[in-house]
Amino acid sequence: MNKPRVSSKKKPFLDVPIEPLRVEEGITADELLRRMEHISFQGRNLAVAHRIWQRMLSDDALIFFGIAGALSAGGLRLAIADLVHRRAVDCLVSTGANLYHDLHETRGRRHFIGSPDADDSKLQELHIDRVYDTLVDEDEFIDNDAWIASFALTLEPRPYTTREFLYRLGEHLWSETEADGILTAAYRCGVPIYCPAIADSSIGMGLSQARHERPNAGHVDVIGDIIESTNLVLHHPRTASVVLGGGTPKNFINQASVQAEFYCPGTGGHRYALQIVTDAAHFGGASGATLDEAQSWGKLAEDADYVTVRADATVAFPLLASALATSASGLLTARRYPKFEFDDKTLVIDGNDVLVDRFKTKD
Amino acid sequence: MNKPRVSSKKKPFLDVPIEPLRVEEGITADELLRRMEHISFQGRNLAVAHRIWQRMLSDDALIFFGIAGALSAGGLRLAIADLVHRRAVDCLVSTGANLYHDLHETRGRRHFIGSPDADDSKLQELHIDRVYDTLVDEDEFIDNDAWIASFALTLEPRPYTTREFLYRLGEHLWSETEADGILTAAYRCGVPIYCPAIADSSIGMGLSQARHERPNAGHVDVIGDIIESTNLVLHHPRTASVVLGGGTPKNFINQASVQAEFYCPGTGGHRYALQIVTDAAHFGGASGATLDEAQSWGKLAEDADYVTVRADATVAFPLLASALATSASGLLTARRYPKFEFDDKTLVIDGNDVLVDRFKTKD
Amino acid sequence: MNKPRVSSKKKPFLDVPIEPLRVEEGITADELLRRMEHISFQGRNLAVAHRIWQRMLSDDALIFFGIAGALSAGGLRLAIADLVHRRAVDCLVSTGANLYHDLHETRGRRHFIGSPDADDSKLQELHIDRVYDTLVDEDEFIDNDAWIASFALTLEPRPYTTREFLYRLGEHLWSETEADGILTAAYRCGVPIYCPAIADSSIGMGLSQARHERPNAGHVDVIGDIIESTNLVLHHPRTASVVLGGGTPKNFINQASVQAEFYCPGTGGHRYALQIVTDAAHFGGASGATLDEAQSWGKLAEDADYVTVRADATVAFPLLASALATSASGLLTARRYPKFEFDDKTLVIDGNDVLVDRFKTKD
Amino acid sequence: MNKPRVSSKKKPFLDVPIEPLRVEEGITADELLRRMEHISFQGRNLAVAHRIWQRMLSDDALIFFGIAGALSAGGLRLAIADLVHRRAVDCLVSTGANLYHDLHETRGRRHFIGSPDADDSKLQELHIDRVYDTLVDEDEFIDNDAWIASFALTLEPRPYTTREFLYRLGEHLWSETEADGILTAAYRCGVPIYCPAIADSSIGMGLSQARHERPNAGHVDVIGDIIESTNLVLHHPRTASVVLGGGTPKNFINQASVQAEFYCPGTGGHRYALQIVTDAAHFGGASGATLDEAQSWGKLAEDADYVTVRADATVAFPLLASALATSASGLLTARRYPKFEFDDKTLVIDGNDVLVDRFKTKD
Repeated sequence: MNKPRVSSKKKPFLDVPIEPLRVEEGITADELLRRMEHISFQGRNLAVAHRIWQRMLSDDALIFFGIAGALSAGGLRLAIADLVHRRAVDCLVSTGANLYHDLHETRGRRHFIGSPDADDSKLQELHIDRVYDTLVDEDEFIDNDAWIASFALTLEPRPYTTREFLYRLGEHLWSETEADGILTAAYRCGVPIYCPAIADSSIGMGLSQARHERPNAGHVDVIGDIIESTNLVLHHPRTASVVLGGGTPKNFINQASVQAEFYCPGTGGHRYALQIVTDAAHFGGASGATLDEAQSWGKLAEDADYVTVRADATVAFPLLASALATSASGLLTARRYPKFEFDDKTLVIDGNDVLVDRFKTKD
Repeated sequence: MNKPRVSSKKKPFLDVPIEPLRVEEGITADELLRRMEHISFQGRNLAVAHRIWQRMLSDDALIFFGIAGALSAGGLRLAIADLVHRRAVDCLVSTGANLYHDLHETRGRRHFIGSPDADDSKLQELHIDRVYDTLVDEDEFIDNDAWIASFALTLEPRPYTTREFLYRLGEHLWSETEADGILTAAYRCGVPIYCPAIADSSIGMGLSQARHERPNAGHVDVIGDIIESTNLVLHHPRTASVVLGGGTPKNFINQASVQAEFYCPGTGGHRYALQIVTDAAHFGGASGATLDEAQSWGKLAEDADYVTVRADATVAFPLLASALATSASGLLTARRYPKFEFDDKTLVIDGNDVLVDRFKTKD
Repeated sequence: MNKPRVSSKKKPFLDVPIEPLRVEEGITADELLRRMEHISFQGRNLAVAHRIWQRMLSDDALIFFGIAGALSAGGLRLAIADLVHRRAVDCLVSTGANLYHDLHETRGRRHFIGSPDADDSKLQELHIDRVYDTLVDEDEFIDNDAWIASFALTLEPRPYTTREFLYRLGEHLWSETEADGILTAAYRCGVPIYCPAIADSSIGMGLSQARHERPNAGHVDVIGDIIESTNLVLHHPRTASVVLGGGTPKNFINQASVQAEFYCPGTGGHRYALQIVTDAAHFGGASGATLDEAQSWGKLAEDADYVTVRADATVAFPLLASALATSASGLLTARRYPKFEFDDKTLVIDGNDVLVDRFKTKD
Repeated sequence: MNKPRVSSKKKPFLDVPIEPLRVEEGITADELLRRMEHISFQGRNLAVAHRIWQRMLSDDALIFFGIAGALSAGGLRLAIADLVHRRAVDCLVSTGANLYHDLHETRGRRHFIGSPDADDSKLQELHIDRVYDTLVDEDEFIDNDAWIASFALTLEPRPYTTREFLYRLGEHLWSETEADGILTAAYRCGVPIYCPAIADSSIGMGLSQARHERPNAGHVDVIGDIIESTNLVLHHPRTASVVLGGGTPKNFINQASVQAEFYCPGTGGHRYALQIVTDAAHFGGASGATLDEAQSWGKLAEDADYVTVRADATVAFPLLASALATSASGLLTARRYPKFEFDDKTLVIDGNDVLVDRFKTKD
């Protein structure tokens, strides 16, 4: 058999061989991802994402976790809550829908297995809503909206950042249900949640129904969210970004580091980044944009460690989260993660107040 | 030559033949789309979208127009402004980025042709930001942010719906530049713009910088946007939805009809809908969701006329908008579109005040 | 208004501005594509493809044209035939399906407009076949298969390259129908067609039915196709590649230049290349592969002029072909295209025999 | 906490709840997929694919396995070989590239980890070929081509079906290397391989180089492949289709059952089908086509059990194959799979000769 002859100039390019994946009985998720580091395409990228997440954890970075797409309806809410409990992430940025569908299940209701080929007129007649292959009772959604509106009416009438509102919502939800979920896990573990596009969701609709009852209710301060999230970066400049699905969370997390750089030049962008997105880059939209492109904006540090996985989160995330549960177990125990306190309307990080009306600047 | 023999049972299925497209010198956009109605796949869908848009116009529907994706940076802002000028659309719902990039060019700056293979570290060093194959001067962006912040500081300190804020921003921009663009066209033509995810954009960043200067500045009332946009549907229940790119505008436009139904049962969903999106439905995200699925939620009327075109808007929209400029010319002249007035903080539609703190209900 | 200040280092990057597209009544396809050269994303790429095709034509390149995807069923067969008639292309490489569906319509049958949500069990019961939103009578297909088998049985029993077989098939089809289509246009204009994956198509199935009747019938020589197509490149080394949809035609066209380089080093790859494909590059498949990647293999010349358009051909190709019909009208008149003769089993290009059993080498 | 109240009419739709995925340390691939059956979107589909594959195995179906996309270069060749060894599949249909890249590694050479952002001009200069993020030495490829040509010249000069040629190639490769791979596993386990588009691959190029040496060498009989593969279905009509990546293998496997139905009405289509593809259905191409559509053609049985997974095979297949290695271990031991013999030029299945020049008909 011929031995490969690699000329010296080729050598640097043909250095690390692909190792064909070996399949075995009883293989665990983390071992599988370890092997997938040596294959190609999006399988390799997912394995690299696993490795990068471990590095984020061992480097004491503040890990932002962005969740877009119908992840809660789609059955990933407890896997996300689990990451919050283990403090494999430190700060959530979510679409409203993911929090709303989480709340729905935390309140004891369910989503159901359906088909993408359903008869939608029939479903509408029956008050059943469809999310691709997943169904939900619209009447229960109407009840959720009313529940959110009622809760909002119990709050002192003033503007709330989404972070403060969602903390209080999580608290109320926990007190009423003592059930696990994203909102309740974040409340119990002291992990802030931002929802920059809250107006584009049923949580926003619930707030609007509170306003309908009392004109001074239902005020959110999404500009305060921008300042507060930027100040988090300024207080803890070693940051990381984990994003599922792109959307508003992806950009919100990234703009925080751009804004931080503006007020404190030299802050640098996120040190680590991984994203699992289905969109391609070539249509120019933000969800699909590469992390290389993010570097041009200073969203990522010049020497950042990053990877994009082009995959449906319902395929890739279960494998990634399961692998991490095993592989990062020691790292998570040893990890010195940022400590948050929720002091009335003020968020406190590692003992420092995080303002909502003024950016931290170099003193 | 054999003549096709179609049995009587097959007949209803094999009724309208594909007409192979004939190419000709000097063919116009509208004639091309007329021919494409008889081909297949997304080409046919684009031609159907052309036809449905014409029906919206002839049926005096209130046409919501959602714009997501980097359309302004990508060279489509004046084609969008043109639709506003001709009143081929009545109400915009936009991402912040599209309005910000529009403002950037209206202020006399440009985006530039670049390559997706650029060296992003080099670009960051030079303060150049990249959007796929399009470049922009980051220092000019910083100046835009400051300009927005300065403007925001001139406003009376109270919460503004994004609709009111963007109207005033358009007014200021026009007075300063007298240049055409989305914001200035909407201001001049009395077309409202909503930006539900304003916190996830550089316009939001500009507002946060105003807040940094003066703690009571930079307040937006995105919950008011929900109520106001729903009330538009309740005042003018024959509505239509045109969406480019999905994202928050798509859902915001659809939730308005769901919310309207809640307060006035029987309102029905949008009568017409067309969307040009790149995302596939099968990953479950809202951007890619079919309009069939929208029917299950009551976002669309049961007998709505609708079509989804799976295409990059930079390919499909120039052809569609060009065709419409010709084919709808008579319809646009004859059209009785909703008339908006902007009475201080209150939006007025066809003589009726549109509230921001109370949903219109059946009297 | 501020004038943009561009520092000297930025200048080379921020040089050619995006020109926002202006929409107008009566705009023609070619004028539209001219304007789209100054926008972004896939719209720009399509406009660049238009420009590159014009360059191919003015540079007397031998233009390979690869067609994959259901283009004939989908209504593009006469637009493709038109390019053959005008000699905007010189040599076709096709999937079997595109030729088979073309033959179906040339024989006077039709495809029909259907819906992707059809009841496929019902269709199967009725003997109707579905291609996404397009329907066809299965019994007519069965008749086509028999017609192909009958024709194949009239041929002298020996192996035929697909090029020779398809030439004779086109001749027979023309003599029987005198109708326009891809096969008949190629026959009449003396344009060769290769079908490397003929075994994976209904044409292959027709050939297999001929074999069933007579064991020595239905022999194709696809290896001869490889040699012959490579020899075309060696006789006319200034080549270009236009590809719709990727698939086997894309690679077959590209391997011809790799093989040519092997036998005559210095031949160089294709000088021009454009592809309209829907697949993304990031999954590693050949259909979606970038043309940059093709350069690593020597499939394209190092200084080749090329572009990839990520779009459905049914959206992009009608616009492109229509624009070309106008913009290239003069170029096509002046063009000195390669002349083919079909001398019994031998293809002749510009007076030179093209062998099927021996590669041309440097003499 | 409220208990969900589901009205009796809703009940049939809201019956099987989504079970939020629970992540755990040490979870195995098969347990993970078992849990994923209760989530949504493509994650659920992958889990359903796992279940369907088990059913194929327990129902003694003849399992066709189609492999397209750069799976061998991308590190999946030994996972595929493993399925052959365990007889979790019975008959391969492959693109030429997957077999060629397999041969390359079986001969002791490697593919290497690279980057999609490589400098392709530089690579071409160094004779390195790129497949997205994977690199290979072009000089070694040239040596493979010569090796294939040399082998082809040892064969008696007559046409060979790709199945016979690839069997002999596997035999020769095993005798020379005694190394594991797809070709050698298929040879050793008596599993036939078809390669309908062999002309569009480097194996075809190797055969053409043999022809260059000796004009009567390098003859393949791809029409014989059609007949033989159809006859397999006719001898063993309980069939199943597993497809990775679509392409020519997908359609070749499906046309076999259509052709079988033609010669023996009532044969029925494949009883089971699963495909993992990245293409969407909405562009009308065969790779992305749904399996519902396949039913209209009679490619699948009316009551077939099938699922489509829209995912990159490098992400989805490692998980699926690993899970199957555990979950199907008992099934595989008990399985009565079809037995093949390779009797000179004739394939024998379960003791019956499979003809290449005549379709089996009802006796």
